[in-house]
Amino acid sequence: MIELYDLVGAKDLRFSPYCWRTKAVLAYKNIPYTTVPIRFSDKDKLTFSGQDRVPVIKDGDRVVYDSWTIAGYLEDQQREPRIFPSLGLKEACRFFNLYVDRTLHLACLPVFVSDIFAKIDPADRDYFRTSREARFGMTLEALAAKRAENRPKLRAVLTDLDATLAGQDYFFGVLSYADLCLFGSFKWITAVSDEPLFDATSALQTWWGRMHERLGM
Amino acid sequence: MIELYDLVGAKDLRFSPYCWRTKAVLAYKNIPYTTVPIRFSDKDKLTFSGQDRVPVIKDGDRVVYDSWTIAGYLEDQQREPRIFPSLGLKEACRFFNLYVDRTLHLACLPVFVSDIFAKIDPADRDYFRTSREARFGMTLEALAAKRAENRPKLRAVLTDLDATLAGQDYFFGVLSYADLCLFGSFKWITAVSDEPLFDATSALQTWWGRMHERLGM
Repeated sequence: MIELYDLVGAKDLRFSPYCWRTKAVLAYKNIPYTTVPIRFSDKDKLTFSGQDRVPVIKDGDRVVYDSWTIAGYLEDQQREPRIFPSLGLKEACRFFNLYVDRTLHLACLPVFVSDIFAKIDPADRDYFRTSREARFGMTLEALAAKRAENRPKLRAVLTDLDATLAGQDYFFGVLSYADLCLFGSFKWITAVSDEPLFDATSALQTWWGRMHERLGM
Repeated sequence: MIELYDLVGAKDLRFSPYCWRTKAVLAYKNIPYTTVPIRFSDKDKLTFSGQDRVPVIKDGDRVVYDSWTIAGYLEDQQREPRIFPSLGLKEACRFFNLYVDRTLHLACLPVFVSDIFAKIDPADRDYFRTSREARFGMTLEALAAKRAENRPKLRAVLTDLDATLAGQDYFFGVLSYADLCLFGSFKWITAVSDEPLFDATSALQTWWGRMHERLGM
């Protein structure tokens, strides 16, 4: 059975967007798996993979890391149901993935960073603080103080995503990795924060329910 | 023959990104057309279309406006070569279109606004100044003074687009409306500014040459 090395916070909370993407692909393809919990400070346990970031999967003798590479690997191993269901959609999903990582995540982090900090394993807090303060060039507290100021930027991104969905069931019409990728990112935010991400009547909210139903999650 | 109502600047310069998108689709499908030059201040000449923005096309008795709607119309009228060549790619192109309009254009405008202002028809300058100063909440001169400060944001978007192309000929692997849409936006910038948009060795530069060749433009 596939083993997934899965980032874990305090109280066994699973919150990595990238690990959630892999779990979403496994669930969609109905591939059984177990998880191995990994904290940020457990990186030495990933040495066998030749790098230090989750997700990593072990499939018998094979080791695959990086959520995008894992998605392609799983698509090759078990074709149906497809996450890249037609010509050009793999490339389109790669672009969507880049958009989510850059545009959505960069809009989310300043808003939710203190929620994330509160939910990670206490052993990981120093690492998290140091790495994120370096990335944003300010303390977590200074970033948290700008929460209200940063929220409109996140709203703008969510409005664009909502507009993309209008009149469609999935981001590219048919369910594809684009949906699974974004599902992973929203699982990350909703795992750490109680702040509502979507308006109750939005296309995003309807899609969010649809995704949980499709994935049985 | 199709008539395209096409935005025109000083000295007959054609620079609207949205009109260029329509011209790129027409060129790709090898559909003959003529253009009717329209200045911002000629909006009353578009009254027949029921709205006041270019592009508008007249195809016999039919009138179609909005570059995205026109693209779908032309795809329906003349199927080959297709701009939405497979299942899901129309929706993927719509998302790419939204990204270009919001993310790329919003990064371009602060950098190139004074170049655009210099190239539009003198009769349009008051309209352009008033509308753009309202949008950015500052004078064109204040915006131009921030040009150096705004350039890194544009570079970041171009870097993402370049990364998307890496190892591919077109944004979604096969040529699609995504390429034609972005081609239109780069035609806009290169029409008004001499500042190089791409590094000579970048994937974007190679794609830019490839697009001109494919479209015979």
